Amino acid sequence: SGGGVDHMDSMESCVPPGFRFHPTDEELVGYYLRKKVASQKIDLDVIRDIDLYRIEPWDLTVLIFCSNLSECIEEHCGIGYEEQNEWYFFSFKDRKYPTGTRTNRATMAGFWKATGRDKAVHERSRLIGMRKTLVFYKGRAPNGQKTDWIMHEYRLETDENI
Amino acid sequence: SGGGVDHMDSMESCVPPGFRFHPTDEELVGYYLRKKVASQKIDLDVIRDIDLYRIEPWDLTVLIFCSNLSECIEEHCGIGYEEQNEWYFFSFKDRKYPTGTRTNRATMAGFWKATGRDKAVHERSRLIGMRKTLVFYKGRAPNGQKTDWIMHEYRLETDENI
Repeated sequence: SGGGVDHMDSMESCVPPGFRFHPTDEELVGYYLRKKVASQKIDLDVIRDIDLYRIEPWDLTVLIFCSNLSECIEEHCGIGYEEQNEWYFFSFKDRKYPTGTRTNRATMAGFWKATGRDKAVHERSRLIGMRKTLVFYKGRAPNGQKTDWIMHEYRLETDENI
Repeated sequence: SGGGVDHMDSMESCVPPGFRFHPTDEELVGYYLRKKVASQKIDLDVIRDIDLYRIEPWDLTVLIFCSNLSECIEEHCGIGYEEQNEWYFFSFKDRKYPTGTRTNRATMAGFWKATGRDKAVHERSRLIGMRKTLVFYKGRAPNGQKTDWIMHEYRLETDENI
């Protein structure tokens, strides 16, 4: 049934009590993102797929908390989303124009805008990816109103980069 | 072979990348300590047995890092002890006198001394345990020299308390 996770699957893929998902940049890129891009199996589906530009940042917590998978994880594994103030997800980039490379990071209520320099992500001493920091602004550029929402966008530094 | 953990066992009981052991007081008492006292199976043997009063606090990291289990966890599960500054373990209390109830918390180099009030540990609204905070002093009471080492000692609030 595709990406669906049923009760038995979820029960088998729990982590013991006391463990929290606090991944390093290296783990996010070198394990989770690399496997996702290669369509390989990820041990525990703790990172959800969403369409980031169809949802406002303040709705993310509701979406992630209310999904079936997270309810299972919450109840049976004690990963404890309720005490988190960070959320992890996969999302495709939305191109501004079908033929272009510029990225459209607008939602209904506002837009994500890059800030600072991208940070390199290394695995041992090898460059495996980059981390871009974005801030959410309400409204429309160039007149947006800055908010406290911050996102780190990770990309692989390989040819398979999507 | 009793409490021994062999290579196969350890490999099977890994957690996925990105998970760190940051248990709450409730999880430590309500899951780990309760199961330990009842001799029930613990999902992942992440909390080691040590004899706390035969080892100095600054040697704990070495002991825990060098054990077979932790090496496996370190290499294969990425729990990442190397970046921790907290360690978790089980230890029996040492009575000062065979017939008494006073506890002997001295090591070769110093002693653990309680500080502040014990903190109640609740599971939902029920009291399940207490947490005592202790500080390590080098030397012998009453002339010890205070250090930065702090320990939280958890006990069950039940009749099976040991």
